[in-house]
Amino acid sequence: MDLKAYLNAKRTLVDSFLRSYFRRRFSPPLLREAMLYSLMAGGKRLRPILCLASYEACGKDSKDIIKYASALELIHTYSLIHDDLPSMDNDDLRRGKPTSHKVYGEAIAILAGDGLLTEAFRLLSEESPKIKTQALLKGINEVASGAGIKGMVAGQAQDIISEDATPDGKTLSFIHRHKTGALITSSVRLGAILAAASKSRLDALTHYAKNLGLAFQIVDDILDIKGSTEDLGKPAGSDLRKKKMTYPALYGIEESRKKAERLIEGALGSLRGFPKSADPLREIARYVLIRNN
Amino acid sequence: MDLKAYLNAKRTLVDSFLRSYFRRRFSPPLLREAMLYSLMAGGKRLRPILCLASYEACGKDSKDIIKYASALELIHTYSLIHDDLPSMDNDDLRRGKPTSHKVYGEAIAILAGDGLLTEAFRLLSEESPKIKTQALLKGINEVASGAGIKGMVAGQAQDIISEDATPDGKTLSFIHRHKTGALITSSVRLGAILAAASKSRLDALTHYAKNLGLAFQIVDDILDIKGSTEDLGKPAGSDLRKKKMTYPALYGIEESRKKAERLIEGALGSLRGFPKSADPLREIARYVLIRNN
Repeated sequence: MDLKAYLNAKRTLVDSFLRSYFRRRFSPPLLREAMLYSLMAGGKRLRPILCLASYEACGKDSKDIIKYASALELIHTYSLIHDDLPSMDNDDLRRGKPTSHKVYGEAIAILAGDGLLTEAFRLLSEESPKIKTQALLKGINEVASGAGIKGMVAGQAQDIISEDATPDGKTLSFIHRHKTGALITSSVRLGAILAAASKSRLDALTHYAKNLGLAFQIVDDILDIKGSTEDLGKPAGSDLRKKKMTYPALYGIEESRKKAERLIEGALGSLRGFPKSADPLREIARYVLIRNN
Repeated sequence: MDLKAYLNAKRTLVDSFLRSYFRRRFSPPLLREAMLYSLMAGGKRLRPILCLASYEACGKDSKDIIKYASALELIHTYSLIHDDLPSMDNDDLRRGKPTSHKVYGEAIAILAGDGLLTEAFRLLSEESPKIKTQALLKGINEVASGAGIKGMVAGQAQDIISEDATPDGKTLSFIHRHKTGALITSSVRLGAILAAASKSRLDALTHYAKNLGLAFQIVDDILDIKGSTEDLGKPAGSDLRKKKMTYPALYGIEESRKKAERLIEGALGSLRGFPKSADPLREIARYVLIRNN
């Protein structure tokens, strides 16, 4: 299959949903502008695409759930805005553009994040003729779990608390599995839950997602060291300067790369029982190892 | 009826639910501590109580929905933590205690707020034998609408943007109706939605809530001028010093008081068709005019 064409097609669907969803104006205009600024800053839409691909892997037509998949991008975008704040990672650039608080000030940046997070749940709670209300409710619970205090928020808090601390494998694993891993896992699981997948399929997809999420983050750590500022859209080596715990810092680049490869093998293995409609998930897993941004 | 006993009984139910819900430890401990610090800082639990009372006004037993009503307090608490941040209202005291960022630093305060908001939706999406899944889904949508970019977040953004601006009635009304009014309205509506109330009942309760919410905020503005620091738990006159738009500043204390009284009359009028089980809502409305903190 042509992964690039697949990713482009799905990204276009998500982008046009988001654009039309935020077409209606609301007050204050500055809040809307700040939300759109970060939402339309050129994200890869990885989380929505994983959700759509997981739904397809369960034999369904992903057009049914564009709205729900897109909600994941609102949550991802909120997390980036808040992570970039001066009191958090204090980043001035994101995807090559000034970060939200640099453009709109801290107060509006915080509120834009709060608004995106809340709006995600508004979207997820809209009824749809194709999806059972019980599946939606389970889906909301899944996303709130992955994004919240036992998921993404816990990971970011641990990351902040661990700055300048002596790196150790257990803490690093906690941060990665929660800060990025949890929402990636919930994205894949949301697709399966909305498709009313069997327990064994849900378990297999969960295993896939956990492996993928950790591999994704390890490759991110490696790219931060080896990538160019142009490719990354942020200064290369910024983890190092901020004394962030990373896999390469703890295990070296070579060992980190091997770990990522083993994780992707594990991800592919868990899809063994799935039909051809799981090919996008398979190709995405392979792509994680060769991406350069 | 004995309103004080009613409020105490409901507050105890909500408090003990929240305490037991957060009994389980999770990592990092500092995040949990920060969430509990603000959540257990002595709030009146007005929003949960309004939700419970509204459910009762529809003829139901409020024990069914303690969990869902309590989720509203998580949202209220998150909004206070974020509002107090240096880049927002920059408050050092809340209910007589140092604000979250003063104790835990800005980063953890922001994340505690994010965590509380997300956890609210996790709670609201938990199934319950007493409530239909469709009612729950509608309830989540209601709360996300009231808390979000067309509700509370919009009000806070407008409030921030309007600091130092020349006061005008239209902007002030927008701020009050959104910043406090929207979540109060959603709290009352959540009770009615979970009770599967008829459209006419839901409309009447919505009218009640909108009047109550605005009256509540006007009285808040008056108390900020007339109240003592001890009663308020924060320095009296702080709105004035921060050049916040308030009703007394725009219309004078006398006229503001009259406006609040008219709103409460309107609130009581909309409950005319309701049985005796709506008495708590009636008494709460009357109480708004005589409260001193």
